[in-house]
Amino acid sequence: MSVLVVGTTALDSIKTPKVENPRLLGGSASHAAVASSFFAPTKLVGVIGGDFPAKHVALYKKHKLDLKGLEKVKDGQSFHWSGEYEVNMNNRRTLNTVLGVIEHWSPKLPGDYETTPYVLLANMSPAVQHTVLDQMSKPKFVIADTMDLWMNIALADLLRLLKRVDCLVLNDGEARQLVEEDNVPTALAKIHKLGPRYVIIKKGEHGSLLSGPKGLFIAPAYPLKKVVDPTGAGDSFVGGLIGYLAAQKSGSVESNLRRAIIHGSVVASFCCEGFGLHRTTKVTRAEIAGRVRELEKLAKF
Amino acid sequence: MSVLVVGTTALDSIKTPKVENPRLLGGSASHAAVASSFFAPTKLVGVIGGDFPAKHVALYKKHKLDLKGLEKVKDGQSFHWSGEYEVNMNNRRTLNTVLGVIEHWSPKLPGDYETTPYVLLANMSPAVQHTVLDQMSKPKFVIADTMDLWMNIALADLLRLLKRVDCLVLNDGEARQLVEEDNVPTALAKIHKLGPRYVIIKKGEHGSLLSGPKGLFIAPAYPLKKVVDPTGAGDSFVGGLIGYLAAQKSGSVESNLRRAIIHGSVVASFCCEGFGLHRTTKVTRAEIAGRVRELEKLAKF
Repeated sequence: MSVLVVGTTALDSIKTPKVENPRLLGGSASHAAVASSFFAPTKLVGVIGGDFPAKHVALYKKHKLDLKGLEKVKDGQSFHWSGEYEVNMNNRRTLNTVLGVIEHWSPKLPGDYETTPYVLLANMSPAVQHTVLDQMSKPKFVIADTMDLWMNIALADLLRLLKRVDCLVLNDGEARQLVEEDNVPTALAKIHKLGPRYVIIKKGEHGSLLSGPKGLFIAPAYPLKKVVDPTGAGDSFVGGLIGYLAAQKSGSVESNLRRAIIHGSVVASFCCEGFGLHRTTKVTRAEIAGRVRELEKLAKF
Repeated sequence: MSVLVVGTTALDSIKTPKVENPRLLGGSASHAAVASSFFAPTKLVGVIGGDFPAKHVALYKKHKLDLKGLEKVKDGQSFHWSGEYEVNMNNRRTLNTVLGVIEHWSPKLPGDYETTPYVLLANMSPAVQHTVLDQMSKPKFVIADTMDLWMNIALADLLRLLKRVDCLVLNDGEARQLVEEDNVPTALAKIHKLGPRYVIIKKGEHGSLLSGPKGLFIAPAYPLKKVVDPTGAGDSFVGGLIGYLAAQKSGSVESNLRRAIIHGSVVASFCCEGFGLHRTTKVTRAEIAGRVRELEKLAKF
């Protein structure tokens, strides 16, 4: 079944201690839609300015993304994020943000998109995530990704959104912040009370946690000896996850979600091995399957 | 087969945001030997002062620890550590340390101890860990636990020790510090070059990593909804681990170590649920087996 990914399509300028890379293809929807495309037909809804390089659109096309919902504002400027990573690659700081065309963007879905069964509301403002759901007709499974920024500036919108989604994805610090609870398993129980039947907690190199009606799943992360650029890893994770989920023809939601998380985390591991989408867009389905098999062995006891 | 545990036997006074508990049974050897005793006959070597409560020794006896090597200095003061935990129970600070009888202690092993096949050098100064190995005759498997303190004040001794042990246990921050490398998988490779064939990295709630000749094992931690007192969790982990390992009659070192880590982490989870050894000493073998089965389900994909 197919996947609809709505989120930001951006230019990322990324500085690490070793290198500076200007105007890479970035944004939550770019990473997530490419990741999803390894497993399922994927529609990308976003907005770009007249300055958006044609080679970036060509990359979308290489992944056979359905781009009918990719809006282009010819005289507008693309969303542009600049950030810098510290030596250990875990801490990053934003150097500059130009909202450009996303500032007043309200996504309009092409008519035939409203019945897409799997919907990923990639990281963006919860108000915009609401407008997407307003245009959908009974999707089978909706995942929302979010971040601390929205808890700080748009908490009411986010809380309202939680009643409308099947699954929320966030990191452990954000989970603690959302329900003001330090213990993660207890925080998970509190988040379920806000709406989502499934909650997934991203913990970077420490893996992730799925919490659902049947309890917890503790997922390992693929161990990387070298992290080149972690930007977009979380988006790749959730994109790979929903793509894998949409591709399953049998099995319970629970067991499919477990394997979907493993596949998402493997795509995220490739994402970290290159700047922007450099590595992800060169990965093959066979390489992904190879790392999934490796993870199975690494976690067996 | 039997296990020899050498380390500190202490009184711990522990303050948490909710409660203050003075003069609990503590110390690396106390936690580790009790944890080991669930699986294998265990000898405890340590030193106590005349002030050491008889009820603490009674607890050792309840666990059938062989105490021939527990030295008592009648006119000496027991090692006494006082510490305080912050609200989230992850950060602790030492309020006071009285070394007492451990300051000039040099363990003398009872004659029949030298052939004990499994040796755990629980957390204590590497110089003292050396004196234990000097008295052993070709042990089958030696595990050393350590901490950042020894890297700061006794690095040369520690580096010399690494050439004499089969397995080193430390946390992720300590692993990074030991080889000055931020990436954990890369740090592991560098630690192997210092000597130990197996390295285990403790990551608390995030589980642990085993690195050995056959590669990595990523182990989950048992998820706890409430942490009462994490003091001794690391010691319980490594104690349960070596006890389980010593009890295996078949299987490869590699696969036994994987399951030993799971059992150690389950004992550590019980340790966190009470002050000092309160919870650990009330646990049954059946409760441990129950949590191991739960962890198997929590980690399956």
